[in-house]
Amino acid sequence: MIPVKGYAAQNPKAPLAPFKFERRELKPHDVLIDIIYCGVCHSDIHMARDEWGGAIYPLVPGHEIVGKVNRIGSSVKKFKVGDLAAVGVLVDSCRECSSCKQGLEQYCEVHWVPTYSGYEMDNKTITYGGYSNQIVTDENYVLQVPNNLDRKGIAPLLCAGITTYSPLRHWRVGKGHKIGVVGLGGLGHMAVKFAASFDAEVTVLSTSNSKQADAKRLGAAHFINTTDEAQLKKAKGQFDFLLNTIAAHHDINSLVALLKLNGTMIMVGIPPEDPSLSVSGLIGKRRTIAGSMIGGIRETQEMLNYCAEKNIVSDVEVIAMKDINMAYERMIKGDVRYRFVIDMATL
Amino acid sequence: MIPVKGYAAQNPKAPLAPFKFERRELKPHDVLIDIIYCGVCHSDIHMARDEWGGAIYPLVPGHEIVGKVNRIGSSVKKFKVGDLAAVGVLVDSCRECSSCKQGLEQYCEVHWVPTYSGYEMDNKTITYGGYSNQIVTDENYVLQVPNNLDRKGIAPLLCAGITTYSPLRHWRVGKGHKIGVVGLGGLGHMAVKFAASFDAEVTVLSTSNSKQADAKRLGAAHFINTTDEAQLKKAKGQFDFLLNTIAAHHDINSLVALLKLNGTMIMVGIPPEDPSLSVSGLIGKRRTIAGSMIGGIRETQEMLNYCAEKNIVSDVEVIAMKDINMAYERMIKGDVRYRFVIDMATL
Repeated sequence: MIPVKGYAAQNPKAPLAPFKFERRELKPHDVLIDIIYCGVCHSDIHMARDEWGGAIYPLVPGHEIVGKVNRIGSSVKKFKVGDLAAVGVLVDSCRECSSCKQGLEQYCEVHWVPTYSGYEMDNKTITYGGYSNQIVTDENYVLQVPNNLDRKGIAPLLCAGITTYSPLRHWRVGKGHKIGVVGLGGLGHMAVKFAASFDAEVTVLSTSNSKQADAKRLGAAHFINTTDEAQLKKAKGQFDFLLNTIAAHHDINSLVALLKLNGTMIMVGIPPEDPSLSVSGLIGKRRTIAGSMIGGIRETQEMLNYCAEKNIVSDVEVIAMKDINMAYERMIKGDVRYRFVIDMATL
Repeated sequence: MIPVKGYAAQNPKAPLAPFKFERRELKPHDVLIDIIYCGVCHSDIHMARDEWGGAIYPLVPGHEIVGKVNRIGSSVKKFKVGDLAAVGVLVDSCRECSSCKQGLEQYCEVHWVPTYSGYEMDNKTITYGGYSNQIVTDENYVLQVPNNLDRKGIAPLLCAGITTYSPLRHWRVGKGHKIGVVGLGGLGHMAVKFAASFDAEVTVLSTSNSKQADAKRLGAAHFINTTDEAQLKKAKGQFDFLLNTIAAHHDINSLVALLKLNGTMIMVGIPPEDPSLSVSGLIGKRRTIAGSMIGGIRETQEMLNYCAEKNIVSDVEVIAMKDINMAYERMIKGDVRYRFVIDMATL
């Protein structure tokens, strides 16, 4: 076993604190990665505090991981020592079901292994995430990272990036489309960058006018303050797509009303309570509500290559590992533009 | 003006009763139709009793109308006296917006004119429906009716038929697809006939085992009793499509769970209260919920021609006009297989 160190929550009420644990010794297809940066995703908070249920303690969060290959297993072909590498939200899956065979491991019909607070395919070995100095992951679930990108801005691509890139690609959002990005946070700011880079006409919908200047800077053509009834009314029936990144409770029907005939709202955030759905709001203009979850390994690699080509990374604020609990409090207040990234050299 | 007779509700509490009123004198593009049969749609009850709000009294229901052309306006080209003709849910629209130009008058961006309890494009002339001996309608909103079909079974095609045909066509349901039709009533029984005729593998989902034999007879390969948890559990992740025809309160999330990856549930009924939507149920398999409303004139004609080719009509029970109030009570209990049709000769 490989001794490593990290930060863990010991129970739902405990702040994150230093924690020593072990990673598995390398199997033939494993890669040992020295973690350079790890992004801080809002789901890290939900999981550390067991707000969604099912948390496994001690819990080492972190699934936006970028680092450098330290050592490789005997059969590894994709990586050599010293390569930049990344790990995202999932680290294994059944590899045999129809979803896995399509490169959609995130929809594995058997079981996909979350990077932390889950079980390996043996259904008993607990996974620990990227708030740690090293990680061991099967090469098939490790991404190759282009060298030309700012490293700290890469980490959030592994969750916030792919979660927005994947649906934009799946629904072929691009030139001629009007898309509204609902919520300008970690996910939203990546959605704006991607949608604008795909030549869609982007509007940011936010409850806060303080986001307006950033929205424009990130690539949005328009801004709507969703607390202003007049602005909402004016925007009725205007959008081909809405990418809804809000994970807080909110009225989805006033958003659906902004879609034009055959328009689609794609949900990538999960509100804490099930919202009510106005069925007549859908029927009246043949509208659609869809959900989308992260992305598969193949598409995540495609996204990283695309980011390298377009020089797209996340806007980040780098923090020291010891400041993680303060960072969580700031995230809960929405006080981050737009993703905290932990510098693992500070561990 | 043309004096006609019909049955009307005078207020939300009153039973339907005989009512004399007038139709407009024929304009150049108008057609005067002697109504032979009029189908009884569940929305007739909602409207007569003002259960959705906005009802206009006296209210003459009926939007599943089949009859014979009695007289034509000076410029009518589509019809000659003696032709079979039909009128559905809408009798006019703006004709100029993007929706109308696409033949999607039901999504007119200005105003579409419902066949009854609505206002003409002048926004003041009240429309009266098909529980009547005659109707005057612009030829552009009148359908041509094939001669080879059983006439009493044609009437319900104008609402129950097109409301299910249109989404099945829009989402290209056909060979290789597993589709569940939720609810076996007026809409559901037409959905089964159409989906089976498109070579999809059809399952009927119903709360009542008494519908099982009919489901098979109508073309379904399978039957699921939705009150049986074991049957629901077994069907999880099985369907490409669900066509949900239920207009009563029900749990939509246990239905969404039956969809496979990328599956779509199409809503054509409007429950009285907004259901709660499990967003994670959508996200977990990139599922979609969509709504669809009736169909445009062009597609309604296409459906009638298709029905003529495949000899598809609605299963009906013919009633006399005087029995309409009793028929409403039976419909509320679900006691009709599968559509009441009023024989207008009894008026």
